[in-house]
Amino acid sequence: MDADNQQESLDSDWITGFVDGEGCFYVGINRIEKMSLGWQVLPEFRVTQHERDVVLLERIRDDFGFGSVRPNHGDRMDYRVRGLDNLNEVVEFFERHPLQSKKRSDFETFAEIIEMMNDDLHLTKSGLDRIARLASTMNEGVTRSYLESSETVCRTPDSG
Amino acid sequence: MDADNQQESLDSDWITGFVDGEGCFYVGINRIEKMSLGWQVLPEFRVTQHERDVVLLERIRDDFGFGSVRPNHGDRMDYRVRGLDNLNEVVEFFERHPLQSKKRSDFETFAEIIEMMNDDLHLTKSGLDRIARLASTMNEGVTRSYLESSETVCRTPDSG
Repeated sequence: MDADNQQESLDSDWITGFVDGEGCFYVGINRIEKMSLGWQVLPEFRVTQHERDVVLLERIRDDFGFGSVRPNHGDRMDYRVRGLDNLNEVVEFFERHPLQSKKRSDFETFAEIIEMMNDDLHLTKSGLDRIARLASTMNEGVTRSYLESSETVCRTPDSG
Repeated sequence: MDADNQQESLDSDWITGFVDGEGCFYVGINRIEKMSLGWQVLPEFRVTQHERDVVLLERIRDDFGFGSVRPNHGDRMDYRVRGLDNLNEVVEFFERHPLQSKKRSDFETFAEIIEMMNDDLHLTKSGLDRIARLASTMNEGVTRSYLESSETVCRTPDSG
């Protein structure tokens, strides 16, 4: 009965429930001189957990088939997904298995930004403006501007 | 697409995933003079959430068909289940839909204590001793003794 020894796939609805509790959809907008507009849009899906359950994050990673598990801070570990191809799969997953908490509204904004990036709109000034406005409404409406360096801010039980 | 407007039943695996993140199984042992042995065993199942998602706790309560939603502290709300009949149903639920995180070991200890209480063993000195020892191994092994008043201690992301 040790969870460590059970490596079968996790149920999709279980994953959604766990992400409703422990997941985060985040879009960072960072100053990168070499980018055409000088700014990089960096969307990220993250699940944070105490290191005691790192095996669980690895099972989620194995079920998705991409992303990485790495230290967050202190005794916390993250499962983290970046990259447009992978994030499109994440969006499809949560469209099939809808989140039930208020986190769903962050997800819907996240999905809209991913869709804009699919169309390369983040490479246009107007698209970047819109993404920045959308991103500022996520994660409890933490005010961010792509005129300032953005911090990684997630709505977590600790900060909520 | 507002979660508030969706009142259909939650998927059982979703509930398990959410509880793997946000739930707690706790057994308090409290000094009550009027009890035959002078101590009351008080098992409790709890799911804690920011008040923004109180509707979600109410949906979980409605799906189980028992328990109550009430303030925890600050902006936190609890869905709380007490009472042996209800807790037997909780145990059956998580036996059918097993937890995947390390919280499962707390659940198994909790289920063992509920089973002992079904047989009224908590009303015997030896049973109470055993329950106290089992309870002290739960929630990160916080040391508790039924010779001291116990505090409500749950393994949460904040305290983990």
